[in-house]
Amino acid sequence: MSIFSKTKSMFHLPEGVIYLDGNSLGPLPKATPDHVSNMLTKEWGDLLITGWNKADWMGQPSRIGDRIGKLIGAPSGSVVMGDTLSIKVYQAVASALDLNKSRKIVLSDNGNFPTDLYMVDGLLKSLDNGHELRLADPEKVEAALNEDIAVLMLTEVDYRTGRKHDMKALTAKAQALGIIVIWDLAHSAGAVEVDVAACNADFAIGCTYKYLNGGPGAPAFIYVAPKHQEKIRPALSGWLGHEAPFAFDIDYRPGAGIERMRVGTPPVIALAALESSLDIWDMVTMKEVRQKSIELCDLFIAQVEQHCPSLSLNSPREGTNRGSQITFKFDDGYAAMQALVAHGVIGDFRAPNNMRFGFTPLYIDEGDVVAAVKILANVLDNKLWDKPEYNQRSRVT
Amino acid sequence: MSIFSKTKSMFHLPEGVIYLDGNSLGPLPKATPDHVSNMLTKEWGDLLITGWNKADWMGQPSRIGDRIGKLIGAPSGSVVMGDTLSIKVYQAVASALDLNKSRKIVLSDNGNFPTDLYMVDGLLKSLDNGHELRLADPEKVEAALNEDIAVLMLTEVDYRTGRKHDMKALTAKAQALGIIVIWDLAHSAGAVEVDVAACNADFAIGCTYKYLNGGPGAPAFIYVAPKHQEKIRPALSGWLGHEAPFAFDIDYRPGAGIERMRVGTPPVIALAALESSLDIWDMVTMKEVRQKSIELCDLFIAQVEQHCPSLSLNSPREGTNRGSQITFKFDDGYAAMQALVAHGVIGDFRAPNNMRFGFTPLYIDEGDVVAAVKILANVLDNKLWDKPEYNQRSRVT
Repeated sequence: MSIFSKTKSMFHLPEGVIYLDGNSLGPLPKATPDHVSNMLTKEWGDLLITGWNKADWMGQPSRIGDRIGKLIGAPSGSVVMGDTLSIKVYQAVASALDLNKSRKIVLSDNGNFPTDLYMVDGLLKSLDNGHELRLADPEKVEAALNEDIAVLMLTEVDYRTGRKHDMKALTAKAQALGIIVIWDLAHSAGAVEVDVAACNADFAIGCTYKYLNGGPGAPAFIYVAPKHQEKIRPALSGWLGHEAPFAFDIDYRPGAGIERMRVGTPPVIALAALESSLDIWDMVTMKEVRQKSIELCDLFIAQVEQHCPSLSLNSPREGTNRGSQITFKFDDGYAAMQALVAHGVIGDFRAPNNMRFGFTPLYIDEGDVVAAVKILANVLDNKLWDKPEYNQRSRVT
Repeated sequence: MSIFSKTKSMFHLPEGVIYLDGNSLGPLPKATPDHVSNMLTKEWGDLLITGWNKADWMGQPSRIGDRIGKLIGAPSGSVVMGDTLSIKVYQAVASALDLNKSRKIVLSDNGNFPTDLYMVDGLLKSLDNGHELRLADPEKVEAALNEDIAVLMLTEVDYRTGRKHDMKALTAKAQALGIIVIWDLAHSAGAVEVDVAACNADFAIGCTYKYLNGGPGAPAFIYVAPKHQEKIRPALSGWLGHEAPFAFDIDYRPGAGIERMRVGTPPVIALAALESSLDIWDMVTMKEVRQKSIELCDLFIAQVEQHCPSLSLNSPREGTNRGSQITFKFDDGYAAMQALVAHGVIGDFRAPNNMRFGFTPLYIDEGDVVAAVKILANVLDNKLWDKPEYNQRSRVT
């Protein structure tokens, strides 16, 4: 039994469904309900307030942060959990601007996930001090780097196409120009090999409800390079990031190292769910996950191009240039995806015309890929998507 | 059977423990583990990504917000859930300053919970535009109001002493001077009768892990007066607060009404736990909870003053002037509280010398109060606290 057969058996995968949307929300690990239930009854229920010490809820954000750190090449003590990715964007950009005060421009690309851009926009409007959010096409980011730029903030893997930036090269080029570099790893952590330390990233942020299977709305993470940790002034200076939260001092003094990136009371129940899902990650290496992911994606591309000629690839063909998802363009992609879901293959749709499919070796295998394409071909060949009910747009697709 | 006997039976209360710390972390409702487990398996597990629509996870922050709203006198559509109280402080103060741009001072009191002050400090340092956080003694807040002040931010019930501000009177006096008023209801929601609409509060914020029993790190809430909702520019402009989150537009446009106070992806699992605990609140009115709370607190004061002469009251004696907690001063209060916990009565300690006890009618009755004081008297009479192990300070007390 291969390691991936074993990991697949550890997920709750509904009968009759092939789930190619783990890049949006990972599925439920079978162990999670019992783990959470146990936390609720044996920790919250029995320990009550003493759980903060006795069950070390207080140390949970750093303890889990270290486990995430192993998946992204971050040393112990450089990652902490909490809040949402949107909040972590705000913390990282505010801190980065503070480290580079003489400059006013935040550079990103126009393919970045919108909330990253929205959060920066909100921050810069609040600062009201001549800052600018500048957007380049993803392939023109390198050319747009210059010594006026304070911060480069990019998402490594494009949420629509899966196109992957060269994290190491861009970081080095930006830093040579005195730019602080922030990487959003939302579509990278658990999907591709990441080594924030080797890439010399200044900050990295990400969510845990996609490839890391932490559950809907699972807490986010933030990495701060050790050399910056003691220098940054937290913009979101909450009590759990204080040097001595339980001294209840009037004045804020930032905590040691990465601890200062904590804000409010940690989400203990949500972190318990995430903690359980990370046990599965202890069984594999990112190297073997990445290799298998590329194989699955290559197989999917080959199968679709053979059986679904009306679709056109909108992801890099070369495995090393993309993340763990594949997008095909189709003008009626919205309806086609709805029909596909109704026929048992869950992917998703991203405007304007992207049918997006995520490949997650922990629970997707070659048999799933072949079966999914067969169903997709049937939906397309027989125009099963051409029904009114598949064209009603709902909020989440 | 009184309604409070019934509600008491709905909580998991460990054998041999009298829990007088629900003002810090409420206990586990018996229904919560099954409710969460059901959400995990039947929603996340079976529905996967389609849960956002089919289980209406997307509507959960507003749906639960409306339920919280009923407990604090807020109309439907004026409260939304998410993040932590620290983050909600930041959102409220940033928005309030934006509504009152010609002024630069945020006034609070030096008895406010530290994270509220820390978050404002962080915000003002980021703005770097001549703002000031000014602190008055709690009883001198009214005298400190003037037309230079932009924002008055107060916690209604003092976290140490339980002293309660006159929310309606202070709001009216501040607003007459053109000040925007924010109330932190951390120790009020579920503890005292609150009517944010009748008080004309501009903003209110609070947490749900104390009297509302949402679990450790449960999500926070924010209320924005309907008249302001369409005027405020969110400082934390996340995608879930966008007018059309799934259009994935490059530019941020705030959502309608209270929705713009949403930031990132909502914490669905944590909100499910909270949702379950709110079912108990549907069985009672705040009027009857408040009346019973005052009776329990009065009884506690009388019993302590009769049986524990070495303690001195550090809370208002008059029930209407305090929240749902009572504090007694004792020089060796830290060790005494540790000893008391070891003997089965859980309260907590707040520096420098406050032994704090919360009274929560949903699961504490007169028998508990009398029994707790008997144990407290024994700890004090026999100096059971005078042991080295009770003097070792841990992070959470």
